[in-house]
Amino acid sequence: MLTLSSDFGSPYPAAMKGVILQRTDARLVDVSHDLPRQDVRSAAFWLREVLPYFPPAVHLVVVDPTVGTERRAIAARVGEHALVGPDNGVLRPVARRLAERTDATIETFAIEGEEPASSTFHGRDVFAPAAADVHQLGVDQFDGDERFRPIDDPVEFSFPEAELREDGADGEVLAIDDFGNVITNIPGDVLDRSSADAIAINDRAIGVADTYAELGVGDPLVTVGSHGNVELAVREGRGDVAFDLEIGDDVELRQ
Amino acid sequence: MLTLSSDFGSPYPAAMKGVILQRTDARLVDVSHDLPRQDVRSAAFWLREVLPYFPPAVHLVVVDPTVGTERRAIAARVGEHALVGPDNGVLRPVARRLAERTDATIETFAIEGEEPASSTFHGRDVFAPAAADVHQLGVDQFDGDERFRPIDDPVEFSFPEAELREDGADGEVLAIDDFGNVITNIPGDVLDRSSADAIAINDRAIGVADTYAELGVGDPLVTVGSHGNVELAVREGRGDVAFDLEIGDDVELRQ
Amino acid sequence: MLTLSSDFGSPYPAAMKGVILQRTDARLVDVSHDLPRQDVRSAAFWLREVLPYFPPAVHLVVVDPTVGTERRAIAARVGEHALVGPDNGVLRPVARRLAERTDATIETFAIEGEEPASSTFHGRDVFAPAAADVHQLGVDQFDGDERFRPIDDPVEFSFPEAELREDGADGEVLAIDDFGNVITNIPGDVLDRSSADAIAINDRAIGVADTYAELGVGDPLVTVGSHGNVELAVREGRGDVAFDLEIGDDVELRQ
Repeated sequence: MLTLSSDFGSPYPAAMKGVILQRTDARLVDVSHDLPRQDVRSAAFWLREVLPYFPPAVHLVVVDPTVGTERRAIAARVGEHALVGPDNGVLRPVARRLAERTDATIETFAIEGEEPASSTFHGRDVFAPAAADVHQLGVDQFDGDERFRPIDDPVEFSFPEAELREDGADGEVLAIDDFGNVITNIPGDVLDRSSADAIAINDRAIGVADTYAELGVGDPLVTVGSHGNVELAVREGRGDVAFDLEIGDDVELRQ
Repeated sequence: MLTLSSDFGSPYPAAMKGVILQRTDARLVDVSHDLPRQDVRSAAFWLREVLPYFPPAVHLVVVDPTVGTERRAIAARVGEHALVGPDNGVLRPVARRLAERTDATIETFAIEGEEPASSTFHGRDVFAPAAADVHQLGVDQFDGDERFRPIDDPVEFSFPEAELREDGADGEVLAIDDFGNVITNIPGDVLDRSSADAIAINDRAIGVADTYAELGVGDPLVTVGSHGNVELAVREGRGDVAFDLEIGDDVELRQ
Repeated sequence: MLTLSSDFGSPYPAAMKGVILQRTDARLVDVSHDLPRQDVRSAAFWLREVLPYFPPAVHLVVVDPTVGTERRAIAARVGEHALVGPDNGVLRPVARRLAERTDATIETFAIEGEEPASSTFHGRDVFAPAAADVHQLGVDQFDGDERFRPIDDPVEFSFPEAELREDGADGEVLAIDDFGNVITNIPGDVLDRSSADAIAINDRAIGVADTYAELGVGDPLVTVGSHGNVELAVREGRGDVAFDLEIGDDVELRQ
């Protein structure tokens, strides 16, 4: 199985699929080609939240704002999973999550080889062939091929952690989903449902709910989302608009 | 074969795919993840129009504005097809259409089981595992598993029928497609092509055409669309804008 | 393998998939269903750039603004590839590109048969069944079936060629991608990197770069894109907006 993730929209992902299918008959599964464009941080978040649900697979990831520069192409092995993409940090949070879940270590390799055909589309010219080759060689032994050179200095990326306080937490916005739900880095267990039906988000009193449908259509609400974090939402509306929040903005929760 | 339909956009459908692929190696086919958001009525229309073209399959459907409430999760068997989704009516029109086409009855089951991991993403935590299990158990015998409990009171949903008149019909807008074509509930055979080249839609005279290309670019037209219903369109333009119509609006056709 | 390309958005492509899967268990690969709407020229460009990366396959293409008129439905064989779609020119550039690459000839056939169920959705009613049948019959012998009648007068379509000059080239915009990159018909080897760091595009001095990251975020730049042509872009921005260019507009390059 080989999954594909990118910020390419359409139709560039199809060129990657063609290149891959020339080299392997792996099952291809599109994760998303609408990841927020050129946004390594959001891509890293979504991959961490989604890829661990898959059975063992090679995961091709191309969100690559510095394509064509000296940034390396890398492949990482985490147990029975492999990740292939640019060395810009985008693969690190999902690699760590997979490692935690499977008690595996992360082994990282630089992908070497001939000069790519283009300086602007390494998804097609570098990453797709490499991912296909990792699949064909096998996740457990692709590094037997000399194109994959072990490295110990991949570019790191971590999400900021919320600061827990006695009366809540100081966090920030990690991501905003297609529905407009604002996903914070505040752990869901901070929310104390016993004490109150409303809490303060950035000094504004907001109702707490287990489900969107508990409140009226259009009402803003605080909930614990499917990622286990505190989320700010509006029933059948957009939380990002109602709360006027963007990725990286501060979120103060008080209860 | 297992088809997937939702209003999730991206990348949530990928989490469902991962969960499914952990449980079955069924062929997955995306129907759409861009169904009109939180809109049970439109989803019910599109599923009724599209799913019957498929060979026997398990069809996973998640358009679920009341996720996390007491609304049930259900699976329905209609001949060799199975439908899995929320008990909010979204599955009923396609179930009836499949039953008509294959002379089968509709058997409905509540899906029971452990508490889901989230209260906001039952697509991933309830429906995807259930659909995978229906596929693995087999459409003809999944109800041998005690998690699937027969029920006879699924939430119903039907589309309004147009009222036929001697000089036309009084109907309404059922759906609007991505092209902006306005799909009404007026049966196509109401259109009397022999009598006139133009008819009145909401008191406005409009040309009748068999194909978009019969009229000039930008001209509004009335035609019989691919669903067999009267549609209002604009050649290489948007019918919904030209006719100022939304889903549910009245459409009076006079000829 | 059977690839699908259209300008249908969602959910009409799923009806085509259902029809195909009733007739064949071919691997289906979505190329794009977001090709620029009703735009034969852009579709022809993207298909020419993407389909040749695929291994031998049947390629279903539906960008069909004159659906329902007398325009023919055609299938073309180019070596081990087959193309199925409307006879409006959209298949010709990719057919020629495949022929060049594989040293094959292009054989074209009109698709004949019963009256389609609709006059507006030949993707579902004509092209999908024909593509499935070409796949089932085999690319090397589908024309043994009498529904495929050889023709020698397919509708032609070619892209305009840039006019090379001593100090640059006069070309035009062929396509604009999802990132907003403006793809011209000026061959990349016209760009003389040795002479200058900046050239004139429509009398405006613009920096030349091998990669987007060479310049500052928001800076316009000229580069050789992944299609081998001169492209006008903005790092992490939209070239079409910065250069105020649309498809078909003139581009004068002077250096």
